[in-house]
Formats: sequence, C-alpha cells, structure tokens
Amino acid sequence: MSAARMQVLSSRNVRLLSRGRNEVFAGRSGAQRPGGDPRTRSLTCPPLSSSSSPGRALSSLSATRRGLPKEKMSENGIMSRAKVLTIDTMNPTVKKVEYAVRGPIVQRAVELERELSEGMKKPFAEVIKANIGDAHAMGQQPITFFRQVLALCSYPELLSDSTFPEDAKSRACRILQSCGGNSMGSYSASQGIDSVRQDVARYIERRDGGVACDPDNIYLTTGASDGIVTMLKLLVCGEGTTRTGVMIPIPQYPLYSAALAELGAVQINYFLNEEKCWSLDITELQRAVNEARQYCNPRALCIINPGNPTGQVQSRQCIEDVIRFAAKERLFLMADEVYQDNVYAEGCQFHSFKKVLFEMGPEYAETVELASFHSTSKCYMGECGFRGGYMEIINMDDEVKDQLTKLLSVRLCPPVPGQALMDLVVNPPQPGEPSYGSFIKERTATLSALAEKAKLTEQVLNTVQGISCNPVQGAMYSFPRITIPEKAVKEATETGQQPDMFYCMKMLEETGICLVPGSGFGQKDGTYHFRMTILPPTDKLKILLNKVKEFHQRFTQQYS
Amino acid sequence: MSAARMQVLSSRNVRLLSRGRNEVFAGRSGAQRPGGDPRTRSLTCPPLSSSSSPGRALSSLSATRRGLPKEKMSENGIMSRAKVLTIDTMNPTVKKVEYAVRGPIVQRAVELERELSEGMKKPFAEVIKANIGDAHAMGQQPITFFRQVLALCSYPELLSDSTFPEDAKSRACRILQSCGGNSMGSYSASQGIDSVRQDVARYIERRDGGVACDPDNIYLTTGASDGIVTMLKLLVCGEGTTRTGVMIPIPQYPLYSAALAELGAVQINYFLNEEKCWSLDITELQRAVNEARQYCNPRALCIINPGNPTGQVQSRQCIEDVIRFAAKERLFLMADEVYQDNVYAEGCQFHSFKKVLFEMGPEYAETVELASFHSTSKCYMGECGFRGGYMEIINMDDEVKDQLTKLLSVRLCPPVPGQALMDLVVNPPQPGEPSYGSFIKERTATLSALAEKAKLTEQVLNTVQGISCNPVQGAMYSFPRITIPEKAVKEATETGQQPDMFYCMKMLEETGICLVPGSGFGQKDGTYHFRMTILPPTDKLKILLNKVKEFHQRFTQQYS
Repeated sequence: MSAARMQVLSSRNVRLLSRGRNEVFAGRSGAQRPGGDPRTRSLTCPPLSSSSSPGRALSSLSATRRGLPKEKMSENGIMSRAKVLTIDTMNPTVKKVEYAVRGPIVQRAVELERELSEGMKKPFAEVIKANIGDAHAMGQQPITFFRQVLALCSYPELLSDSTFPEDAKSRACRILQSCGGNSMGSYSASQGIDSVRQDVARYIERRDGGVACDPDNIYLTTGASDGIVTMLKLLVCGEGTTRTGVMIPIPQYPLYSAALAELGAVQINYFLNEEKCWSLDITELQRAVNEARQYCNPRALCIINPGNPTGQVQSRQCIEDVIRFAAKERLFLMADEVYQDNVYAEGCQFHSFKKVLFEMGPEYAETVELASFHSTSKCYMGECGFRGGYMEIINMDDEVKDQLTKLLSVRLCPPVPGQALMDLVVNPPQPGEPSYGSFIKERTATLSALAEKAKLTEQVLNTVQGISCNPVQGAMYSFPRITIPEKAVKEATETGQQPDMFYCMKMLEETGICLVPGSGFGQKDGTYHFRMTILPPTDKLKILLNKVKEFHQRFTQQYS
Repeated sequence: MSAARMQVLSSRNVRLLSRGRNEVFAGRSGAQRPGGDPRTRSLTCPPLSSSSSPGRALSSLSATRRGLPKEKMSENGIMSRAKVLTIDTMNPTVKKVEYAVRGPIVQRAVELERELSEGMKKPFAEVIKANIGDAHAMGQQPITFFRQVLALCSYPELLSDSTFPEDAKSRACRILQSCGGNSMGSYSASQGIDSVRQDVARYIERRDGGVACDPDNIYLTTGASDGIVTMLKLLVCGEGTTRTGVMIPIPQYPLYSAALAELGAVQINYFLNEEKCWSLDITELQRAVNEARQYCNPRALCIINPGNPTGQVQSRQCIEDVIRFAAKERLFLMADEVYQDNVYAEGCQFHSFKKVLFEMGPEYAETVELASFHSTSKCYMGECGFRGGYMEIINMDDEVKDQLTKLLSVRLCPPVPGQALMDLVVNPPQPGEPSYGSFIKERTATLSALAEKAKLTEQVLNTVQGISCNPVQGAMYSFPRITIPEKAVKEATETGQQPDMFYCMKMLEETGICLVPGSGFGQKDGTYHFRMTILPPTDKLKILLNKVKEFHQRFTQQYS
C-alpha cells in the first residue's frame, strides 16, 4: 500500500469522525418505519413495545460509528487499522447504481416522520409517501381468499377449522402437497413448484385466448425484479464497442438503469412520446439502435406495458410493430407486464407480447426470443412484501435455459409463500366455488377505485397552470410535466440539485408529500416531471392533489 | 455477423433438434417434484389433481422445444432467425458457475422419481434425497409457535380466534404494527423491518454475553445466501493481479465458489485439516494468502462455523487466531454462522466471531471488519422455504454502508414473511409465556434427535472398510472420506467423470440414495468424499446408512 494511498485512507477516516448523526443516518434509512403509517387499519393489539421505537436505533449509533480513533492513527499498527473496504476500494459498478424510488428524498421523508414522532413542529401533520407503489401501506386491503389460503398453508392445523371455506382448504392442500414434507418450509425446485408453474401456464393460456403455454417455460421469481435482473445477467457480455447494450424506455422504472449499471452493460435510451400520451414510436427505436450500434452491441429491448412511471397502455398495433422491429434488429425482447390488470382508460386494453407474437405466425412465433414478467405486487393484489413473481421465456436456446436453471439453483429457490401467493393469483376462486363472490367483489372494488383515482388525478392536476398530465391509462402512477420557473432552475443548479429534485424536496418540506422527481426516471432535457402514485384512498388523494396544486402555485409565484 | 459465426449458430441450432427429451429435461429439472416425497406427513386432503402430474410438463415439451425449424435455415431471413442469446453469446461468467448441491446427480434423482412414479422397475422403491439440508422435506416438523404467528400475520382476522395462544397473538401484533398498513403485503425498509432488526440486535447481545449490538448494523436478507453474495459483491474490484481475491475453505459450501465465479473474483483455497477433524490451521491460511498475493489482491476471508460440509466446530482459540490473522493480513472477515445452534459433540461449543472479536479488546474490536450471517433455514427451525436471514456488519466504513443500503434498495426488500420468521427465531416464547413449554419441548426434541443422528452416522460409516468419517461435531452433514479402487478411478476418468461423481451416480442408480460427490465441495487431490445429510428420521437413516455400507462393499468388490 503506497504512502499516498494510506494518506487518502487516514484523511477519510478522520473526516468520518466529523460526520453528523443525521448525515450518517440519512444515507442509511430505508423507506418505512415501524407503525409509521397513520393510515394503518386498526388492530385489536396492545401498544407497540417501546423497544421498537426508532430511538434505540439512534441511541447506540455512537457505539460502532467511530471510524478509526484518531489517537491510534500514528501507531505503526496503521496497516492493520486502515479499513479494507472503503468507498475508494469497493466495487466501482455498485457505486454507479442509482434508485430514485428509494433515494435521498425518501430518506428525508423518513427523517421527517421521525421528527414528527419526536414532537417537532412541521407545517404538516403527516408525511404522505406517494413515491412508491405500495398498495397495502396506503390502506388497500388484501384479498381475503388469498390470505386465508396463506394462513392454512402456514399452519395446516387450521384445515380442520370449519370457519375456513372449502375452496380455500383445497387450494391450500394442493399447494402443500406440492411442497417437500407438505411444508412451505421446504426448498422448492429452483425453477419453482411444478404445480404452481402449471397453474401459471394455464392462466397464461386463458389470458391469451388459448395460445399454448409450456409450464417448462415458466420460472417463478422473487418478485418481477429478480427475473428481470437474472435475464439481463444472462445477456451481458463483450467489451468496449462489442459490450451488450440494452434498450430501455425513457422515462423508465429505475430498476433497469440500476441493473445495467451494476452489470456494466450499456444503457440505450429510447424516448417515449409525451405529446402522444407517452406512446412508443418505432422511428425513435430505430434512431436509438442505429446510434447505439456505433458504440455497443444492442442485444435486448425492454418494454414496460402498462407503463411505469408513464401509465400508457400500448395498442396491439404498436406491440406488433415492436416485435417486427426486434426480429429485424435481432433483439431479445423483455416485456415488463406487471401492471397487466391495471388498465383504466376507455378503449384501452392489455395485450400480452406473448399473444401478439404467436398471432403473428410461425415466422415470429418460432424465432423471436421473449421474456415476459409478472408479479404479485401490483394489479388488485398489491402483495409487495411476499416477493412473488414469475417469468415466461419463449424461444430461448435450450443450452442457455440449462444455464439459467443452474444459475437460479445457486440461490436455491424463490420464497415459497410468494410462490403460493402467485399460484392463487393465477388460480383464483372459480364460479360455483364458495369464495368466488367475495373474491370478485373485492377485486372489482379495488380496480374500480383505482380507475376512479386515475381519472381524478389527471383531472385535478390538469386544472393547475404549469402542470400538464397525460391520461393515466393504466398502472398506478401519474407522471405529470411541470413548469419550473427560470429562477428556481438557477437556484437548484447553484445548489447542485436537479431542478425537479429541488422542487420535490421543497414540496416535501412544506407539505409532507413525498414524490419522486422525474430526473430519477429519465426525461427529455429541459423538461421536468414527478411521479406520484394514485394509491391513496380517494378522500386522502383529493387532499393530496389540492396540496400539490397549492404548492405548485406558491412555488411558481415565489420564483417568478 | 461473420459467416463463420453464423455457421456456428446454424450448426448449433441443427444440433438442438437432435437433443433427446430426457437430455433436454435433465438439464432443466429442479430438485423436487409435486408431492414427490414419499416421506411427506399425511394431510386430510383430496388427491392431487391430475393437472399437476409431471406428465403435462413433459407432454407439451415438443411445442416450444424446436430450436429453429431446419427448412427455414437456408432462407435469407437467417439473420433474424439465428438466436440472439446462445451458449456462445451469453454472459461467460455465468457459464463458469457451478453448484453441485443441485447439480446433475440431483437432476438424475428427479428423473428417477419420475420414472418410478410412471411405474418403471428400479432396484429400489423410493429415491432418498440426502443431498441437501432440507429438514422439512425429510419430515422434520416446524415449530408450532412460529407457524401460529405466521398464520396470524397472514390472516389477522384470526387474532380474535380464542384457540391461538396470547403470546402468539402479541408477537403477531408487534410484527403487523411494524408493517405499512399493518400488512405483510407492504414493502418493508430495504434494510429490513426496524423492530425485527432491534429484536435481532437483542438476540445477538444475549447470545454474546452482553456484547453490544447496534440494530443499525443488522441487515435482513433473503436467506443467508443473499447476504453473502451481497457482501462479496461490495468487495470485488481491480483487474489482473490487483483483482480481489477471497479466501474460502476447502471443502466449502459451493455458494462461495459459485458467487466468486459469477463476480469474476479470484477464489483462494485454504485446506481444512481432515486428519485433525477438519480443523483450520493458521499456517495453512498463511501459505494460501502468501501464494495468492503473487496473482491477486486478497481482501476477504470466509469461515464456515460450524462447518458445511465438514461438520467441525471451531475452538475459541482458533477463532482468536483467525481474527489476528485477518487483522495482520488486512482481510475483511465473513463468518457464515447459520448452523450456530447445530452443535452436538461433547466439549464443543459455538463461539461467535463477533463475541470473540469484542473480547480481544479495542485494538481488534474497533478495527477488524466483520460480516456474520444467520438464517431461518437451519438449526432447529429448518424453515428453508421462507428465505429468511440476517447479517450483522461490524466496523464497516460509513460510506460503504450507505452504498450497501442503496444497493439493497434496488431489490426493494427481503420477503416480509421471512423477516417475520427471523423475528420469531430471535425472539421466541419466554419463560412464563403460554407457548414457552411446547416451544422448548419441540426445539429440544429436534436438536437431540439431530445429535443422536450425528453420532449414529459417524459410528455406522466408520464400521465400513474404505470409509472413514470424522465426528459430526455440528451442522447437518457427514463428509466421509471414501476409498475408490484404481479400476473404478480409471473407468470414471475414461468416461470423463470425477471418480466420486462416478461412485455417487452408481449408488443413486443402484440404491436410490442421492448424495453429493466431494468434488462438488473441493477436496485434496487424490482424496474422495461425499456429503450426506443426517436429516432423515432415525429409522430411515439407519436403513440409508446400511444401504450405503452394502453399496460401498459391493462397489469395492466389483472394482478390485
């Protein structure tokens, strides 16, 4: 180790001593705190024990947050005391990773919640986290049937409890009989439980009007994110101008940019057309791939439909054109279809890439490589915490498939409760079964409430001068364009912030509303946006939208 | 694309057409099939619906397993038809990954189970998968209290059910109150639920006789594997001779070699001393690191204690020596302690690296970087399917910690049911609580049965000439050394197999017993071993051990 290198380390270690607690903590908080959401439905429970208050986490910080004691720096033992792992010696690709959905603004929101809970005065009574599609955290109720089956699978003694409906019991039995030792505590096959993959296959066949689905093409995953990252991992190779490039929409869901950064792949941006309701133009795809071929090897095209954060729903024609484009340009298609039940707008309909591909005839159906992703986290379920999901893989080379299964086996298996939940999503109560009525009632209520909130959000935001919002045709977010006055842009730039980050931070501090700046998803230069979920309960959403309206007017006035 | 390259692709595609179904399937099967384990405890359930028989998965294979139709290969459309992703164009580091615990021998075991279920005659009635530490699949019962709480968390309506004990209800309430919207369906903080991290911290403080633990150093993970891979990911950097090297024991648990291969890090082997009951010698560590410094940059040292696959339990003295060595050589310590409750041998005791580190005084306690890993999958719980785990991180640079949290946030959060289960493991029923008695009874029964089976396994195997087995001091496996006759080694080498793979394959075909060859874990050249779990019920384990004995004698005779 060079003296210079040691110097860097020592000075860094000294600097660490001067980091304030908040500064240290801000960088490390997650997105939620225990019982922190005032919207939680009430339980007949004793009060939360003091041991789980955030206080303790803070109180003992000093104990292990010392960096290296200064007085020891000069001893000759220095070599053994300088840290092995520092910001300068860690994996450089990890440093490049960014994920705005849980970025600095969310960390500040968590801090504000702590400060409120500690009695600090704020211009608002609660923090509203509209930054992430976390339905249950916003008060959405789980589907009763799903939770009954999960309870039965967790504690099979309940199978003899007469209060549980028979269809819930038979689902639970089928799942348990597919588990080693009839227990969700056993590892499943790395690809997922066979019977669940078969149920997924039949669901896809029903969804796609009878297009055949082979259960052997289904891989259960730890949420859709896991499947997407795994597929990207398989695709990455080459160096320099032969390095794998992956086309992603702009605006995008930042999992894609984060995964590509970590894998050291080349991100190829294609811009969605905001003027045409965030539609996808083939000419733009062509421009992007042509330019990219000069500096990398474009191998995959990612589509998010319905769109996140942009909420558009693709037409069948557009999907056909995308498939032709992928075939012509030899691109592996990745279709992120986790919002497939979240379609609200008149005349809009979800078309799966799989279905369209097969309807285009053998020339495409037998050659174009496609991976499509689904999840238990969105739609009417909103079961994010269970980390359930699947991917279907079409036309993948058999040897690559073997490699995929081998790779998955290292992580043993996806969480079995998430697999069970995925099974229920693709195999819900059928007409004639005891739980059918309540299931349909609950699902319909959730989806129509979302449709109403999508419309409401678009309408209210479009009444604000300086905010223009495309129709929220699907998914769970609005991504309105906002006008930020020159003076505000200037002030933001001077403080080294993106103008929309500056805008959202100000909104958070003044209103307690936590949104994600458009810069976290990507946007055309000079345009500014934010992403806001439409998930809060309607009455709360109305208040939230009015607060946004008032803030925008105040902000515009202040900086004009 | 060059003509030569196209030729490669076409010939590969043509070759794909000739792959037999079994051959294709063998490479892709997982480790289990629905209801396939005859040891499953019986449920009062309807018979498994035919739709979930493996037949369907096979029947439709032909539909999507065509590779590229031959007659189309010659058309000029070839460019668009050659696959984007092939074995030659996929990520080369993924190809290097190996994971024997679910390798070819397990895939063959799954095939044999299918063949048995389809009525094919075999010299055995059932396949016994002793290849993996999957307790529930081997008939071990889950802890009642844990499953009651999970059922309550899954379906909170049960909180009003008087048949559930009060302590289960209060645990469930505490967990739910820490979840957004009081639902396990919400995302948690990326680092894990605050109250769970606080319970983990208090568990560690109790376990380590009062050594302080900061909840902010606790990260909940998706099983221990997730934490281990994440830590390795942070550590990898540099190229050529400055590339990060990581020291792992040989024999090792193959997650380590697999992760290092995928990350492109350098695997540095240090050999455990089989003659001294798989003990760890510092001189061997020194040899390994000295040699490694010539071709890479050793930055981390991985320890598995109690040992997997080797079953040794490290002495306190040895751990102290390892810590001194790590400090002297500036290595980040990774302590895999997932078997911390699985200690059976007289005079053996589990000592955590954290405790020993802090007892060595500030010179070490404040400087040596340590990550220690635990899981819900092993010990007396055996809840593998829930993918619960945590890691504790000591002396990590604050900026790196921020990067770690950022990296974890991309995957949103570990499965919440797994976090809940981890919470119960570290915060089980206490004396005076209604479930305390049954909890202690169940835990003791499981652990003493394991102790008995550990002894039994060692004793029986050591009665066999040509098999020598070290005491199974801890963990869940025996890793006996086997003598393989020259003739067998020759035949194996001629068929391109490792001699112990040849041996285990033969045992599987003749007895239905599925073991993992020592070559999958690493072993000294010229020595051969297999790993066998001690998990089967005692009566079944006796039968299994006798079958192994008979097979070894037959095999030895046949090849001498």
